[in-house]
Amino acid sequence: MKGTGPTIRDPRSTIRKIRSGDVRALARALTEVENGGAAAAELLRGMFPFSGQAWRVGITGAPGAGKSSLVDRLAAELRREGKTVGIIGVDPTSPYSGGAILGDRIRMQSHASDPGIFIRSMATRGFLGGVARATADVALVLDAAGREVVLVETVGVGQDEVDVVKLADVVAVLLVPGMGDDVQALKAGILEIADVLVINKSDREGADRLEQELRAMLEIAHRPDGWAPPIVRTVATEGAGVAELLAALRTCRFPGRAVSNWKARLLEMLRERLMERALQTGLSNGELEAVAAEVAERKRDPYRFVEEVVERACR
Amino acid sequence: MKGTGPTIRDPRSTIRKIRSGDVRALARALTEVENGGAAAAELLRGMFPFSGQAWRVGITGAPGAGKSSLVDRLAAELRREGKTVGIIGVDPTSPYSGGAILGDRIRMQSHASDPGIFIRSMATRGFLGGVARATADVALVLDAAGREVVLVETVGVGQDEVDVVKLADVVAVLLVPGMGDDVQALKAGILEIADVLVINKSDREGADRLEQELRAMLEIAHRPDGWAPPIVRTVATEGAGVAELLAALRTCRFPGRAVSNWKARLLEMLRERLMERALQTGLSNGELEAVAAEVAERKRDPYRFVEEVVERACR
Repeated sequence: MKGTGPTIRDPRSTIRKIRSGDVRALARALTEVENGGAAAAELLRGMFPFSGQAWRVGITGAPGAGKSSLVDRLAAELRREGKTVGIIGVDPTSPYSGGAILGDRIRMQSHASDPGIFIRSMATRGFLGGVARATADVALVLDAAGREVVLVETVGVGQDEVDVVKLADVVAVLLVPGMGDDVQALKAGILEIADVLVINKSDREGADRLEQELRAMLEIAHRPDGWAPPIVRTVATEGAGVAELLAALRTCRFPGRAVSNWKARLLEMLRERLMERALQTGLSNGELEAVAAEVAERKRDPYRFVEEVVERACR
Repeated sequence: MKGTGPTIRDPRSTIRKIRSGDVRALARALTEVENGGAAAAELLRGMFPFSGQAWRVGITGAPGAGKSSLVDRLAAELRREGKTVGIIGVDPTSPYSGGAILGDRIRMQSHASDPGIFIRSMATRGFLGGVARATADVALVLDAAGREVVLVETVGVGQDEVDVVKLADVVAVLLVPGMGDDVQALKAGILEIADVLVINKSDREGADRLEQELRAMLEIAHRPDGWAPPIVRTVATEGAGVAELLAALRTCRFPGRAVSNWKARLLEMLRERLMERALQTGLSNGELEAVAAEVAERKRDPYRFVEEVVERACR
């Protein structure tokens, strides 16, 4: 699924521009990276050695939990400290949704005057399925571009979202009072990824009950690494609790996470690269279409066909 | 991620047993298939020619929407018609959750006396990421085993869930009154997959408002194929509206869906097979671990490494 951005002819000069703070070059590069392909690969190779400096914070939670407001407040707080910030908004659940784009425009306005905040929305999902890959690459470029903090905002706690936020150094999961059943339903998903639990809209009725539920949950279910996520209350729209959240996030240190994250990422990169190769060397879209039709009529064995394609690609 | 079931030594005789209605052989085969591997591949090859007969219905919706109750009611309704039913419960969002298993036990009890209903829960997610692949294979085996209807129940409308239900011939999305913002948030996801919209717990306050919101949504946003999903009201716990839902599901005919589904499935099978091959021939877990550590310290280029692994696997 290729995007519309112009292809970058000279990755080296683009990298120089990005490193020197050229925001338009950065935006073009991110489009390239999001789309994937050869130029993107060269860009990423060139940017990689400069990466590894940024503090990457993932923020996730159900729709309507107030992620964007909280991310904006966190960004403002970080700016007050003089930190440069990159924000990545990801919405992998709705390929048809313009939500992220719209939110992007609105937020661009509020931060337009501040070059210290760079916002990137990713509403698209690659044909090869790599929203996690694309987000990780975009974060890497923002990191290598010198952004001191990269905030990654994603909706929900589905597997896609888990994969997306796993690239972060620390992850905050937002909850709001009055979710009812959902705490139970989300429990496993939350515990898998939450380093910090945030009760946003905590001025609402039910905040105490939610906190009790979360504490009860944390007493029964424990994380493999033994970390007990702190619970922070916020009212993002008013900025309440944001400084406390930032402090809580900074208490999170997970040695070994960078390695396990890279492990998962290498596998994802490998998966995507193998598919690219198979589709280039072994399988045209026309053939795929034709074979799918034969398989649907049980005139062809899909399992044998897949083996054939693998052999073609890996001759 | 291998399961615990015993490996099947003689796929041919297993297939004969399954075809003759041996439920224990079916259960063993499904475990094998869910785990993947060589024996599973042979089983699937053998079962494939017998598949393509079942009517596959996907049912999805947010946690607490009442999917299980509705699926049980649909199954009971189908049994009254004398149809044999297979039920697959999938919960890809919570790898740590025993929810599906628990639900399975409870439901097994209520249907224990009826061999016409076979229930299979899939709470696990394969290491190679193939819950969609595994579910599709399990559905194929139930189909080839002679189940006339296969009901696939999955939580949420994230990408994983979309991939899971895409294997179905028709998909119902459950909503409940009082979701508020969520309708907006879910809009794109719902429209992508819903052939029938179900307002469950429709005896609750807000059912009319929800229906109005859905109708308004359907007037603005249209599906690429032009289909306007009917809206059906149910109260699953009482069985209200279940017959109407079944009738609505039966009005759904989508020529070409089988082909597009197989297209997506072939790509998923290819993705998984390529990874298996790469991990067998090109990359050990120990090396992956070591390289991830070097990459995390920026001592190694992950992009070049992935290329190397591809070359090794596809020499």
